[in-house]
Amino acid sequence: MEYTPHSELKDRLIRLQRAMSVAGLEAVLIMENMDMYYFTGTAQAGYVWVPASGLPVLMVRKDQARAALESRWNPVPVRSLRDLPSILGEAGLPVPAVAGLEMDVLPVREFWRIQQQFPAVKWEDASGLIRRVRSVKSPYELSILRECGKLHDNLFAHIPRVLTEGIPETTLAAELESFLRRQGHQGYVNFRGFNLEMHYGHILAGPQGAVASSTESPTGGLGLGPAFPFSVSRHAITRNVPVGVDYVGRYHNYLVDQTRIYVIGELDPELQRAHGVALDIQEEIAKRAVPGVSCGSLYQLAVEMAQEAGLQDHFMGWGNQVSFIGHGLGLELNELPVLARGVEERLEEGMVVAVEPKFIFPNRGVVGIENTFVVTAAGLERLTCFQDEVIAVP
Amino acid sequence: MEYTPHSELKDRLIRLQRAMSVAGLEAVLIMENMDMYYFTGTAQAGYVWVPASGLPVLMVRKDQARAALESRWNPVPVRSLRDLPSILGEAGLPVPAVAGLEMDVLPVREFWRIQQQFPAVKWEDASGLIRRVRSVKSPYELSILRECGKLHDNLFAHIPRVLTEGIPETTLAAELESFLRRQGHQGYVNFRGFNLEMHYGHILAGPQGAVASSTESPTGGLGLGPAFPFSVSRHAITRNVPVGVDYVGRYHNYLVDQTRIYVIGELDPELQRAHGVALDIQEEIAKRAVPGVSCGSLYQLAVEMAQEAGLQDHFMGWGNQVSFIGHGLGLELNELPVLARGVEERLEEGMVVAVEPKFIFPNRGVVGIENTFVVTAAGLERLTCFQDEVIAVP
Repeated sequence: MEYTPHSELKDRLIRLQRAMSVAGLEAVLIMENMDMYYFTGTAQAGYVWVPASGLPVLMVRKDQARAALESRWNPVPVRSLRDLPSILGEAGLPVPAVAGLEMDVLPVREFWRIQQQFPAVKWEDASGLIRRVRSVKSPYELSILRECGKLHDNLFAHIPRVLTEGIPETTLAAELESFLRRQGHQGYVNFRGFNLEMHYGHILAGPQGAVASSTESPTGGLGLGPAFPFSVSRHAITRNVPVGVDYVGRYHNYLVDQTRIYVIGELDPELQRAHGVALDIQEEIAKRAVPGVSCGSLYQLAVEMAQEAGLQDHFMGWGNQVSFIGHGLGLELNELPVLARGVEERLEEGMVVAVEPKFIFPNRGVVGIENTFVVTAAGLERLTCFQDEVIAVP
Repeated sequence: MEYTPHSELKDRLIRLQRAMSVAGLEAVLIMENMDMYYFTGTAQAGYVWVPASGLPVLMVRKDQARAALESRWNPVPVRSLRDLPSILGEAGLPVPAVAGLEMDVLPVREFWRIQQQFPAVKWEDASGLIRRVRSVKSPYELSILRECGKLHDNLFAHIPRVLTEGIPETTLAAELESFLRRQGHQGYVNFRGFNLEMHYGHILAGPQGAVASSTESPTGGLGLGPAFPFSVSRHAITRNVPVGVDYVGRYHNYLVDQTRIYVIGELDPELQRAHGVALDIQEEIAKRAVPGVSCGSLYQLAVEMAQEAGLQDHFMGWGNQVSFIGHGLGLELNELPVLARGVEERLEEGMVVAVEPKFIFPNRGVVGIENTFVVTAAGLERLTCFQDEVIAVP
């Protein structure tokens, strides 16, 4: 089992405390699993109290023994939220006037309980601040992400061996997921936020693959039932339609996101051309996405290129378009930055983004590309490297 | 694609409005995916406003066309929360004095936005009320759940064909998940609540299977990394250790939960005996769980039987015990009722529960059973029917 090095945890703490100081927060109470894991090395259930300076207090409900193995922040046991004031008091930490919580995910009922325990504290939303700290990846994280990219490329090389005419979409999904799990895919993808649900992969084949999404994704898929309206349907895969394979890899705790288009036979020239436009957009973004560039300008660039190609109505949805072209990822699939309309935030070296220009053709299918990149001084560097062109099988 | 019959939706609405009337709520605003799906037939992103009487207003952000196919409540388009007051005003609905929200899952930030749009409303927690309405399954739901049980039994009959000495746990998971996906498993399990994360299955083999859970589950498993500390590890499966297979089936939108123990060779007599005690507990609960019995009394019964057998320290955890013996399920894995310590709620006919007496032996493994049942006048009726005994393979 790989544990987060202590030097990483110390560096992350310093960056968080620096951001807290700028925001005027005297403390932050962290509870969300991936925030916990990032700042402590453990995702065991509990609380982390981060003061403005000095060491955090890691309080673990369960499992204490696992947390002690995984985190160097010496976890102390806690039974419930009611114990927090006394634990923090014993640690000599003052009750803050203003403190932060993960208001983007913390349920109201839990918040009410926290307010009861800390009646004098003014609670503010610290989720943006936490997510910004997490958005710049360390060399340690990048080394894991590079390994994830290599592992995930294997899937896309494997697909031509199992994609055959008439194969049910469910069987293809079974084959691909079996391949991923065999090579250590962890089977779960964190997708931060209320109502955001995610299986770790989507197969989007032909007309049923072009069915719209109910979530903030350019593609959806018909799915196997309205309660989870995504990905594979009960159809079999036919010749000459695009078969989009959009899978998230999760290995060694980290995520990469990748999409490729396959076809049994030959793709319609109009769809083939749109795929080429997606590759041009990807190439242009990869060149321009250097530190200091605003996220919104990259989205704008993509929209303009889609327009020039006369494909604006198909870009990132059909009558149901999303207004982004890429998203940060790492421990969660929807981290910062977001390459979206109007976003003024600027890229920094070490940010990791999935860029996914896609075109949706109703009743025909989905084409386009998705790769995971790291922002460098020279532009985007690829973490997922399998060939971008449409892969034709006979 | 199966759509929820209109008669079902009408009946669910009536039962919700009756509960609202008792609770003094003039309206409920529903947003959570599975609550949306239950009351409208669609899980497309949006809002349902349920007034104290009369028809609900289904407002859909995306995808409008899918929602119109799936729900008979005539979805109206909505762009954002800001549109709600005017849509409701146009529908002739008064602004309520007291209304309900799903406070158990609604994030604080989203709540603040709702408060801004409805400054005169006093918002209360309606999640308990909604979950109680959902806890009693209709004949329509039970017919789907029976089919789910039959499908899921197939997995457990399949396992002896793939469980062999030395097979990596990850490969076994790959084989089982491939089997499930081929037969239409939807691949995603809704697990309601903050920080509750779930892959649809766990393999708990030998010592690594006995590693404690960080969540409200009797079992955890070592997992493949601390960010998702559950289920399979990088180990291979050896002879004479219990191999627990705990998978959630999801077919036709509904869930069943089932655990069986396999062994290559022979199980230690102490573990074999504990497994027998788990079966005795299951049998006794199945007999006693008739309408009107309190949930807490069934938990108490199980604890006493574990004590009589001298196994109380191993029951439902090791040094990390959970205080329940069963849980409701249907669209979510953790529905009401919960057969837990001190719960006074009484069983009703048509409730569906997974009962899971389990014993954890540190450094040795997990034994016990889990089946999904429906509450009938004669006690629990099984929805999952594969044999309960330990399954030995040569």
